[in-house]
Parts: sequence; C-alpha cells; structure tokens
Amino acid sequence: MPDRYDQVRYELALASRMLANEGVLDAFGHVSLRHPGDPSKFLLSRSRSPQLVEAADILEYTLDAEPVRPTTHRLFAERVIHGCIYAARPDVAAVCHHHAAAVLPFCVAGVPIVPVFHLGAAVGAAMPFWDQQDEFGDTNLLVAKPEEGRSLARALAPHPAVLMRHHGATVVGGDLRELVSRSIFMCQNATYQLQAHMLGKVVPLSAGETRLAGSLNALPTVVGRTWEYWTYRLAEAGRLPPLARAKSRSAPGRSRARGKTGRKQRRS
Amino acid sequence: MPDRYDQVRYELALASRMLANEGVLDAFGHVSLRHPGDPSKFLLSRSRSPQLVEAADILEYTLDAEPVRPTTHRLFAERVIHGCIYAARPDVAAVCHHHAAAVLPFCVAGVPIVPVFHLGAAVGAAMPFWDQQDEFGDTNLLVAKPEEGRSLARALAPHPAVLMRHHGATVVGGDLRELVSRSIFMCQNATYQLQAHMLGKVVPLSAGETRLAGSLNALPTVVGRTWEYWTYRLAEAGRLPPLARAKSRSAPGRSRARGKTGRKQRRS
Amino acid sequence: MPDRYDQVRYELALASRMLANEGVLDAFGHVSLRHPGDPSKFLLSRSRSPQLVEAADILEYTLDAEPVRPTTHRLFAERVIHGCIYAARPDVAAVCHHHAAAVLPFCVAGVPIVPVFHLGAAVGAAMPFWDQQDEFGDTNLLVAKPEEGRSLARALAPHPAVLMRHHGATVVGGDLRELVSRSIFMCQNATYQLQAHMLGKVVPLSAGETRLAGSLNALPTVVGRTWEYWTYRLAEAGRLPPLARAKSRSAPGRSRARGKTGRKQRRS
Amino acid sequence: MPDRYDQVRYELALASRMLANEGVLDAFGHVSLRHPGDPSKFLLSRSRSPQLVEAADILEYTLDAEPVRPTTHRLFAERVIHGCIYAARPDVAAVCHHHAAAVLPFCVAGVPIVPVFHLGAAVGAAMPFWDQQDEFGDTNLLVAKPEEGRSLARALAPHPAVLMRHHGATVVGGDLRELVSRSIFMCQNATYQLQAHMLGKVVPLSAGETRLAGSLNALPTVVGRTWEYWTYRLAEAGRLPPLARAKSRSAPGRSRARGKTGRKQRRS
Repeated sequence: MPDRYDQVRYELALASRMLANEGVLDAFGHVSLRHPGDPSKFLLSRSRSPQLVEAADILEYTLDAEPVRPTTHRLFAERVIHGCIYAARPDVAAVCHHHAAAVLPFCVAGVPIVPVFHLGAAVGAAMPFWDQQDEFGDTNLLVAKPEEGRSLARALAPHPAVLMRHHGATVVGGDLRELVSRSIFMCQNATYQLQAHMLGKVVPLSAGETRLAGSLNALPTVVGRTWEYWTYRLAEAGRLPPLARAKSRSAPGRSRARGKTGRKQRRS
Repeated sequence: MPDRYDQVRYELALASRMLANEGVLDAFGHVSLRHPGDPSKFLLSRSRSPQLVEAADILEYTLDAEPVRPTTHRLFAERVIHGCIYAARPDVAAVCHHHAAAVLPFCVAGVPIVPVFHLGAAVGAAMPFWDQQDEFGDTNLLVAKPEEGRSLARALAPHPAVLMRHHGATVVGGDLRELVSRSIFMCQNATYQLQAHMLGKVVPLSAGETRLAGSLNALPTVVGRTWEYWTYRLAEAGRLPPLARAKSRSAPGRSRARGKTGRKQRRS
Repeated sequence: MPDRYDQVRYELALASRMLANEGVLDAFGHVSLRHPGDPSKFLLSRSRSPQLVEAADILEYTLDAEPVRPTTHRLFAERVIHGCIYAARPDVAAVCHHHAAAVLPFCVAGVPIVPVFHLGAAVGAAMPFWDQQDEFGDTNLLVAKPEEGRSLARALAPHPAVLMRHHGATVVGGDLRELVSRSIFMCQNATYQLQAHMLGKVVPLSAGETRLAGSLNALPTVVGRTWEYWTYRLAEAGRLPPLARAKSRSAPGRSRARGKTGRKQRRS
Repeated sequence: MPDRYDQVRYELALASRMLANEGVLDAFGHVSLRHPGDPSKFLLSRSRSPQLVEAADILEYTLDAEPVRPTTHRLFAERVIHGCIYAARPDVAAVCHHHAAAVLPFCVAGVPIVPVFHLGAAVGAAMPFWDQQDEFGDTNLLVAKPEEGRSLARALAPHPAVLMRHHGATVVGGDLRELVSRSIFMCQNATYQLQAHMLGKVVPLSAGETRLAGSLNALPTVVGRTWEYWTYRLAEAGRLPPLARAKSRSAPGRSRARGKTGRKQRRS
C-alpha cells in the first residue's frame, strides 16, 4: 500500500483501539475499512487483539477475503464477514464485528435490540437476528466459510447492524466515524434496554423518532465532539497507536515513550 | 468577560469535569451558570465534551440562548434548555442537562425516580416526566427550538429535576455546588432504586423525611466534604481544568504538565 | 495524644482509606477505633472523606462523642454512632458506618442480608434492621442525637452489623482488621445475594455453617493475605496515608512524592 | 527446584496475576501446575493473594499436598484441592480454584452454568455442582481435609470445571493457557447467562455446538491473540511478576522499577 494510505491505516488502528477502549471490543473483534482508492478491496488487521493493532498490522484483502499480497502473518478466521458485506452492500465503507458484553445477553436470550434513546436510533428500527444453526446446523459458530459470510450478509440486508445468535453482532457504517459512534451507541442502548426491562417496561422510540434521530450521529456538532472525546480517553489511557516508523525515526526522543505497554505515549 | 470572572469560569469548568469524572456526564451533557453579575445572561461552554471543557471555552449567552459576542465556535444545539429555565426560574443559578447511564433506564421505562435514601432526598418528592412527543409529535428528540425549551421549563415547574422521555434529565440548583451534589446523588438514588426494585419492593422516604433530608446537601459539613473529595478524585485522575494562560505563562515549568491528556497535571 | 499512638492513628487512617479503596466508603462514612490505652475514649477523624483521612486528622473523643481537647475542626454529625456503640458493647474495638452501594438496595427494599457464601458468614446469621422512623418519626435520617445513637446501639445488640433503613449500615469488630474484612465481605455477600435473587433462589448458609465459617476471617492465613492484598491495592492506587511529619522531615527527598493527590507516593 | 524450572515458575506467577487482573481471582484463589518433569508433584504458591505471587513464592508439593522441602512459609489451607485433582485426573496439567464474583451468584442460587456463547463452550455441556454439606454436614466450607479434596475431585469427574455450593468454583486445563482462557471465558459466560435470564430466556448451545466450539480456545489464532492481550493488560497495569533475582542482579538499573507496588515495572 503506498505511503499516501499511511494516514488511512493509522485512522483504522485508532478506530480499532477506540472501540476497545470504550468496551465494544475485547480480546476479540475486528474493524475493517473499504479501500478508499479501490472499492474491490478492504483493509483489516492481521490476527491481533484490537487494542494492540498498529497501522503496520493492517493488510489489504480482496472481497473474497484473501490477502492481496502473500503474508506469513496469522489472519482472522472470520475475515469473510467483512468481504461478504462489502460485496453485498456498496453503501458500506466500514464494518465492525464484536462480542460486546452489553450485547451478548440479547444474543443468548434471542431478544431483539430496539432503539430506546435518541442516540440509540443509530441502530435502526428493526435489527435482524441471524442464527448460524438455521442454515448450517451444528458448527463451532465461527463465520469462517464464504457461504457463512454470504448468509450473514443476506440477513444484514440493508440494516445498520445484525445480531448473531450465541456469538455477538456485526455493525456497518457509511464511514469510519459513523461506524464507531453507531457501535458505541448500540452498546449503550442495549444496556439501557436491559435495565428498563428490569424496571418493567421497554418503550421503544416511535418509527418517526427513530428515523429523525437516526442521523444525529452524523451532525457535525456530534461527530466533532465524540471523536475528540474518545480520542482524549484513548490518549489518557496511554493507548494511542504508535506513529509510523518513518516519523518516529526523525523524532528519536519519542522512542522511549512507545514502550511495550504504551502507558506513557502521548500524541505530539 | 472581565478578568474578575476568570475564577467563575474556572469553577464552571471544574464542575463540568467533576460531573464527568463521577459518571453523570459522558461525551454529551452540559453545565451552565447564571452570570453572577447579570441575571439576564448565563455562562456555558462552546460545543465540547464536558470532561474537556476549560475556562477559555466558556461563553456568555443571553436568556434566548444567543451568544453575547459573535463567535466562530460551534455551539450546543440544546442551549435553549438553559436559557428557558433561567428565564422561568429566578431562583435557579445553575443547570445541568445529562444522559447519565443510571437515569436512562427510568427514561426508557417511564418509571418515576423517587427519593429512596437520605441523600437522594435532594431530588425532591415528585420528579416530573416530560415527553417531547406529547407536544411536538415525532422529533429527533433534541431540545433545540425555543418552544421546546419553554415546554421543558414548564414541565420542570418548581422542581429540582425533570426526567426527559427517551433522552435523559435536566437538574437545577441554587448554586453550582448544590447542582453538582444533587446531580450525583440523583444518579446514586436511581441505581439503588433500580436494584431495590429487583429485590422486590421500593419504599420511598416519607414526605416528612424527604423535606427534612432534602437540605442535607447544603450542610457545611456535607458541602465541604464532598467538594474536597470530588476535587481530589478529579486531581487524582489528572483531569483538573488547566489554569488560565496568564498564570501558566508566569510559571513555565508547569507547561510540560499540561499535555493533551492532562494525566500529569496537578493543581498548585 | 502521645507519640506512641502515632502508629495507631496511622493504622486507622490506613483502614479508612482501604475501605474507601475497596468500595465500602465513598464521600461519606467513617471508621473509629476504641482508644487502645483507655477504653472510655475512642479515635475518629475530623469531618473529612475517608479516602483523604491522615493520621493528623484523627482526634480523641469521650464516649459521649465530645472531643477530649478543644478543636476548631468540623466534626462528623454522626459521631454518636461510635460513642453509643462503644458504651453498649465492651467487646467492640472498632466501628464503621457506611453507605456502600452494595448494601443500599437492601436498606431501601427492607430485605435482610443473610450469609450466602463462606466469607459472608462474618456478618452473622441474623442481621438486625433499624428504622429511625419507628422511634423518632420523620427526621433527616442522620443519627446525630445521643438518643438516636443509643437506639441504634440497642438494635445492633450483640450482632456484628446492623442495617439502617434508607441510610446504610454500621459494622463492628473485635479489632481493626476484623472490622475491615467483615465490612468488605458483607458488601460482597450483598452483591451475590442480590444476583442470586435475580437467578431465582437465595439459599443461605445453614446455622452450623454460619457459625463455623464465621471466624474464617480471623485465621492467620486469611488475615495475613487480605491485609497484604488490600494494602498493595491502596499503594498501587497511590492512596496510602502520608507518613507523619516528623519522619518526612528527616527524609526530604520523599516530599515531592506526597503531592495533593498522592498518586506517586510509595511506602518505604 | 533447578534453574531450568525458573521459566515455568515465572509462567505460573504470570498466569496467577493474569487471572487476578481479569477479575477471576481476588484476595483469594490459587493456580497450580503439575510439575513438568515429575507428574507426581505439583507447583503452587505459598499462601499469598494471587496478584502478588512471584516465581520465588512457588513451592513444590507431593500429590497429598505436602511440601516437598520443609518450609516456614504459611501454606494455603485448601491445597488438597489441587493434589486430589492431579491424583484423579492424569489428563489435567493445571488447576485454578476461585471465588469469582461472576460465578458466586450461581453457587448461591444452585443454578447450573450452561454454555451460552461460542467461547463459553470451553466449560463443557454439563457442569457438576458439589455441595460440601451433602457428604460432610456442617463445615466452615474450606476444602482442607484430604477426604474433602477427594470428594470434590469425584464430583469434578471428567469435566472441565465444578461449581462449589456457597463457595466458588474449580477449573482444570490440559495446560496453563487452556486453564487461563477457560477460567476467563467461564466468568464471561456466567455474566451473560445471568443477564439473559433477566431478559427472560436462557437458550444454551446445542450439544453439537458445544462440542465443536469447545476447542476454539485451543486454536493457535485464539491462544496467540488472548495470551498477547492478557499479558499486555497486565503490563499496562504495572502488574507483571518481577524477573528472577539472578537476572535483576545483572541489571541493577531495573531495581528501582520493581517497587512494592510494581506500577512502573516493564518487561524488557
């Protein structure tokens, strides 16, 4: 990938770590981006926990989820999720697959997530539920085969997210920032929905409210504020992605700050 | 704003960060203060997450929520909440609008928050519930128009707080410290009420207890203790607001400590 | 208080901060110790959040909760809780009053806490419930008058702890370490009991198990392990009490490490 | 133990701290490893909280839970759990006994943990429940006598884990990494199961899914990813075990970094 994509790969690593820092991703889960210069390719990390992903870990894949260049790195078993969704949904530029703790109880109970507060409208009115068992019988529940990925993409259809029985969720966005905010708001929505259920009654937004509030997370005042805030929190935790090697070579004084754990790292 | 208000703006930034640090505010929410020298104005940050607000971000507004001086900054879409409440409630000197996780389940389920422990009495006996849908039909749920702000202020009436259906809450105080403690105790109260509900029975304070315990948070031993504690926790997290520029210029040794994330910052 | 009690006051400040660090105490709550040389006195901090208490904050009180020496410091309104219990219970050497989040739902719902796991047996088989309303009608719920303190002590009777309706709990111990472990295990027990209730059935320990497991927290392997662990966690958070002034004067290099927030402080 | 086992003891201390850092272990709980060179012995720390265990704390025991060499250290009262399981289960190379908060509600309510998400399949289809009361009547609930340890091992039978009424759980693994991931996934599974129960319906994996997904945590992409992630999190928290003394002697510059709390320690 040419140097002009360095910034794109940094942004993807940033989004990956941001989603980990906000509790959407943990040891597992992954975020991808459609290649900005070639819609028939996408960018995704080698197999690595999302909190640890760096720009240098990010590889190019074709839409059938094969690496564009030969690599010796281990790859995610479930990268077909990304390829099949990019193939089926030309409007999608970013995909996140996760096992967020806030969402898993719904995946276990088979209860749909519905929008229950204004920012939660970003998940849409009717989130589909996909059960791998229905089409493939007993599996290890990984979405590793092309036909499994295609089945998931069919279930997603034109929706912003799909729940995966006994497994997690997959969320899509028109760009990386929409994807990040939608993934975070979906987890908050799930938490509030569970607790409202315990209080006795879950009243979702009306169809009209869902439609009108569904684009709140694209407002410049909202995007500007959340991106600054989530970046601040990532920096505060010492978890920003390291800068690219070329740059750090010209700033050797920074090298001590990028230790294994990154706790002292600061963005210049 | 003349220099004599520097301390006031610092206190407002401090309150904003304190409420973020204690879990009342997150990427969203805002705190305002009636102008101490002119009751027809109020002070509120430009559009920014409350954890990041500095004294320099705080602007003056008229009660119709227009900035007193022209500005190129982005402003909060919901600043009418503050203006309309200051106009309707001469006794109110400070306002906080938030989406606290502790309160949202009640906003979804439509269940009233009632005082369930002595410090929770600060929220009053009968908290009103406002549903934007009732008067305005389908909206994006933001309180952005003057008539929406006035409707919310009417629902608040003489109460210390109002719940907002599918959205959050707005809390008021006679001064900034009362506002902060009331907002924090209201979240604790909501958490205990939800869990008591799960145990089987929510027994609120009696009317007499609510009245007598309602002013506990104004006792000097209570205000002194909580303000020291919440400030300590903010300092411990490295999240105190930066000191004003004039002062930091005369203390250049401090400049390294006020990096982007503020983790090493200490109040002198 | 003579110098030989410096260590005792340091231990009390340590216990106070430990209980705050483990989530039993927050902005409120207080821990006291019967005076080791004079059973008709007790030691308790001036009015201050327990996380901030230092040895120098600790004052001597008579059992009627008056300070032994005149002081200009603000004092806790509820210090009669301690005096009345020391007067009524010669076996008690340490008292903790708290509003722990784990316990409050039980105080609201009026549901008794029962021992549900081996370490929870430290709270005893039958925890009494005290409602200030029963004897005093509507109050602000503070236990501030001697007759309120005596009423609470009568309700406590020979038990290890008493729940206080709409308010919190008071726990006692034969020494400071028993008090600390009992307070922490009681909160854990409450959390597990609430969640077991949600699973459908709370089965308490048998009377025999409660009696046999009730002294586990006095075993040398248990006391040694927990005290080391909770001290470690306090030190890791940078929250150990500062050393006495006399000592720090002879070790000036340490002074920088004991800043306002204490984050860098380490015990030598 | 000869020097060639230094790395083994370091790995065991690492696993112990990792399980504490991920919330499986707290002040209590312990992890052991069958001796890699002698299956009739096992390695276990002296009595100490698992977050604090260092390689130097780890002692060798015979399968009847007696130390191989005389020691003046305090030992865990419940070390028979480990010895009896190694004696009964030749396939087991690592054992963890814990009181994890996620699991305790099930131990109190007597509700079985069942696999509810793909990674949770690591706990197996049918987790046995052991109640010390059944065979031994009223006890202090510690598993301290050989006959109690043998009874627990019989209840475990060929399963990956056993729940202990009013006490906690014991988990086993074919190697240390399988044990760690199984223990962590079991806690996540318990949390999701409890919340799914609150949503109304717990649907476990099918028998076939449990069998197929049960070995996911042995996949190289999974083991590699989780071990890197949990180690990163431990390092980030400043909680890695100190390096062995011999090495630190040759690297004196590191000594300052291994203070009591370890916050500044970094692995070289």
